[in-house]
Order: sequence, then C-alpha cells, then structure tokens
Amino acid sequence: MAPRKGNLMSVRDDVRVVDATVRDGGLCNDFRFTDEFVRELYKTNVKSGVDYMEFGYKASRDMFNESDFGKWKFCKEEDIRAIVGENISDMKIAVMADVGRCNYKEDFLPKSESVIDMVRVACYIHQIPAAIAMIEHFHNLGYETTCNIMAVSQANFNQVEEALLLLTASPVDVIYLVDSYGSLYPENAAELAKTYIKAADEVGKKVGFHAHNNQNLAFANTIETMSYGVSYLDATAMGMGRGAGNCAMELLLGFLKNPRYSLYSLLSFIEKYMIPLKEQGVVWGFDLQYMFTGQLNRHPRAAMSFTAEHRHDYCEFYKSLLDNF
Amino acid sequence: MAPRKGNLMSVRDDVRVVDATVRDGGLCNDFRFTDEFVRELYKTNVKSGVDYMEFGYKASRDMFNESDFGKWKFCKEEDIRAIVGENISDMKIAVMADVGRCNYKEDFLPKSESVIDMVRVACYIHQIPAAIAMIEHFHNLGYETTCNIMAVSQANFNQVEEALLLLTASPVDVIYLVDSYGSLYPENAAELAKTYIKAADEVGKKVGFHAHNNQNLAFANTIETMSYGVSYLDATAMGMGRGAGNCAMELLLGFLKNPRYSLYSLLSFIEKYMIPLKEQGVVWGFDLQYMFTGQLNRHPRAAMSFTAEHRHDYCEFYKSLLDNF
Repeated sequence: MAPRKGNLMSVRDDVRVVDATVRDGGLCNDFRFTDEFVRELYKTNVKSGVDYMEFGYKASRDMFNESDFGKWKFCKEEDIRAIVGENISDMKIAVMADVGRCNYKEDFLPKSESVIDMVRVACYIHQIPAAIAMIEHFHNLGYETTCNIMAVSQANFNQVEEALLLLTASPVDVIYLVDSYGSLYPENAAELAKTYIKAADEVGKKVGFHAHNNQNLAFANTIETMSYGVSYLDATAMGMGRGAGNCAMELLLGFLKNPRYSLYSLLSFIEKYMIPLKEQGVVWGFDLQYMFTGQLNRHPRAAMSFTAEHRHDYCEFYKSLLDNF
Repeated sequence: MAPRKGNLMSVRDDVRVVDATVRDGGLCNDFRFTDEFVRELYKTNVKSGVDYMEFGYKASRDMFNESDFGKWKFCKEEDIRAIVGENISDMKIAVMADVGRCNYKEDFLPKSESVIDMVRVACYIHQIPAAIAMIEHFHNLGYETTCNIMAVSQANFNQVEEALLLLTASPVDVIYLVDSYGSLYPENAAELAKTYIKAADEVGKKVGFHAHNNQNLAFANTIETMSYGVSYLDATAMGMGRGAGNCAMELLLGFLKNPRYSLYSLLSFIEKYMIPLKEQGVVWGFDLQYMFTGQLNRHPRAAMSFTAEHRHDYCEFYKSLLDNF
C-alpha cells in the first residue's frame, strides 16, 4: 500500500485550498449572489489563506439566457474585476468551463489581459478528448488548467487508466478526482486517488479532489485522499453546493496544520452571509434523499426534485429509485 | 501498516451492529420516548438485522430522581419486558452502566432471570479499575460485557496501553473505542483501533467503536476503524445522540454488504417517528458549535449550552472557547 504523505501534524506545502462556494453553491440559487456577498467572500478567502477562489462558470451565452441566471454563470472579465480589481493578493482566481457548454474559443482573453489565473475544465470521462482540446487552448492562452473528471464512481477502471494516459500527455496542470455522486467511501476514494497520483507524479502534475456530501463523507474523503498525496482540495463555505453539498471549508481549515490557513474570518463570513442565505430558503446539505442516490451511485437529480417539491415520503422515493435501477 | 480486514465488497461475519438510539438519543430528550416509539424501534431493529439494541442506562435511583427522566434512564427489568416480552428474536438487548453512577450490586438480576443480554460499562480512562470491578460482577451474573472507554482522544498513549493491559486480563468481551468529543480523524481513529485490536486479538476479545459527529466524521470513522478489524459498530437512527449525534444507522446499514442487514424498515421508522421527533423540537446533529469543540478536542458541554440558548453568535462563542483552553 502506498504510504501516507506526512501525518496529522504535518504542514503539507503542496496543499492548495480551492474555494468553490460561488461556483458549486451557485447551482443552489442560479448564481444569484449579491455583489456584497461575493466581495466579502473574496476578502474572507484572502484573509483565510485560501489559495484559489473559483468565481463561477464561463457558460455559453448561446446556450443559456443571461436573464435566467446571476452573473457568475458567465463570469465576464468586467464582473470579476468589479469584485477583485487587479487582485493584488496571493490568492488566485479560477473559473470553470464545462465541455460542450462553453464557447471557449470566443469567451476567454489571453491570460495577459485577464485577472483569471486558472481555468478548470469539467467533463465526463468519455469527453476527455474534448476536454484536452480546451485545455490546450487555455494553456496556450497562458492559463493554469485543471481537468475535473466528473462522476468517476461510474467509470470503469480501464476508462480511468485511459483518461489518465491522455491527460498526463496533455499540458494540464492538475487532474481532479470528482465524486459527483457522493458515492465513494474513504477506502475506494483513497485507492482511486493513489491511481491518479501515481500517473500524475511521473510527469510532474498535481491531483485534486472535489467531494460531494451525499453520504456525509465529503470532508472525510477530502482529508483521506489528501493523506495519500492529493494536493488541490475543493471546499465551500458551510459545504454549500448542489444537492448534499461539498466539503465544508470550515472543517477543512480547522483540520489543516499550515499556519497560513485560519478559520476565524470564515466564521465571521458564515455568521453574516451564509446563515442568512439558509434562512432565505436556499437549500443544500446532507439529507436522506441524497444518501439514497449516493448509496446507489446515481446522479442526484431525482433527489434534487424530491427536495424542490418539499417531499418527505422517503420510503416511496427510495422504492422509486429501486424501480429505476 | 496493518492490512485491512476484507474490502468494500466483503461480508464481515464478525460485525455486530449496535443500535444506541434510545440510550445516546435519550440524552437529547431526558429519555422521554413514548412506549410506541421504543416498541416500533425494537421491531424495526429486529427487521433490519441489528444485532444489539441498547435500551438506556441503569442509572442509580439514589443519585437521579425518577420523576426527572423518562424510564430509559433506569431500564427496569419490567419496563424492558413490557416492550420485548421474552425477546424471542435474534437481536440481543443491551443496557449501559456508568462507573460511579450505577448501583450495580443492587440493580442487576442474574442473567438467568433477566431479558438483558449485555451490559456496557462506560468509564473514563482513569476509572478502568472501577470499570473492571463492575465487569467482573456482571460477568459473574452471566452477562456479556463491554468496556466503553470514553474521551479516549484526551488520554495519552501510555494510559491507553495500561488500560488495554488491564482489560485484556479481565473477563470483558468487547473493548470499545469511544470518540466522545468527535475529535478523531479517520487516520488517528484507525491507528487507535489498530492498537486496541492488536491487544484484543491476542486474548480473543473484540473491539467496538462509538463515534460522535462533531466534525461530520462519525460514519467515516466507523467504517474506517471497521476496515481494520473493529467489529462492534454503534449507530443510531438519524444519528440521534448527544450534541452533534452519532453515526447514522441508515448510513451504516446502507454500507454493510451482509444481506442480513436491510435499510428499508429503518426508513419507514424514520419517516414515522424520527422526523416528527425533530419537528417537535428535539435537537441533535452536526453544527458549527460542535465542530469547534471537536476541532479543539473538548467536551461538548459549552456547545450544548450554546445550542440550548438558541445562540447564533458563532464568532463570540469560538473566541470564548479559545479563552478557556
């Protein structure tokens, strides 16, 4: 078995904390955050030592109507700059580009003209060639890049090996293990992470982990995969994210031993901005319906509908999932 | 590193699932469950394949006023029998006896006259000799016994070794690792479990794990320690238990591969009895105040007061914890 990298007291200088609150959390409220919220989160992340803040998606304006969403679905250069100015901080700015839902050739400036530092390309495993075309484009524009292979719990091992082979030959900087369905356990998350790390290490690339909390394992899987060498760690304030949400930033910052990270500013942000968001009725977090889809290794969409309809007939819902296996 | 015992697909015949809903959950409502609740939970546990159901404490009626609590603080023989009759099921009945808060010489019948199968003796690590005196008494009466060493995250390694030496020489059947403060991570929970298992294995005893969810790790720590050979696994319906609660039974039953365990009956119980309990205002579960005490490896009592007072000034509370380190 591969050894752990460091121990519970170690400062792991390779770790990079990535705040995805506006991006993954935006899936809970159609990206309708106030500018004040995003500006205060930006300041909070800088103070907390967060390494990257993901502002949202660069979604295609041909495919999505701008009036149907808040601005962070599109992440225009001027909108990010209205929050961060020239971003005179140590924290880097990231955006996400979905394969097939992004006009990537048109909507990105050269890095020299943009305040964005990193583009994260999200894809399903069969879309790796399309993802690599985008990664090459962003790399040539001067950006750091990641490839976030979603729903990896449904891929078979051959696909994973093939994907890693293609990605290690590409210019991508970070390969992300994404547990979209929240169906991984610490044990198999760690095994997958070791496979990714082995491939990435050989060519000097890094590995990231993006968790979902369907089985209340988002934080556990994040620190478990980290212990075997994953270095890019996604988290969000109060775990805000689609369905059962993500790894909670407050759990992660409280865990990390590097003194560059601090919890207190985030608590203040949570008290002022996140609790009110919950009180306004924005819904996310662990609940039985997400546990079911996590246990069954399914997309959470049925559970999201169950939540949206304020249903509480868990037994009926569970039976309907078993009917449609 | 010790190898894992089996893998994610294994049926582990040594596993015993222990439902502690009425006992640890009783700490949330002073054990005031209706007879209907306890009877339906009993039936549910039998149907779900649960191996042991803990009914509550055998607390001293000299120290505690019977009118201040529901009956499961005292677990009189006739009260248990009113629920289970002769318990003609494969499931065994457990009760907990706290060192120093139990008239253990007076309040227990010989096993031959009791429907109780197992007595779980809870103690802090400095109380091991007192716990062993009780264990010997219960063993001589004919009961299965466990020793639940609480708050082990605050014990030092020498104490743990000394405790294990004493317990392995005692007649106790199961030695429990108890993360009372919810401050263990999967990594150090597994290391502790391996220490317990090494000592217990040599003398044919078993090891159990009782989790608390202060850092949202109750389920993760349970399955992680299990993977290294822990076999007695405590869980409660919806994680009901003091403060941040315990490992949720529905997560555990969904995880275990042995077909003797099934989730569906529990879902029905949750829908009918647990959701209404929450709606009636009984409070438990992960929240920031418990995360703080978990991260700081403290007793959750300050966080429980914070909860009881309906406070939401997390920053002030966090600062007050740092003041009193």
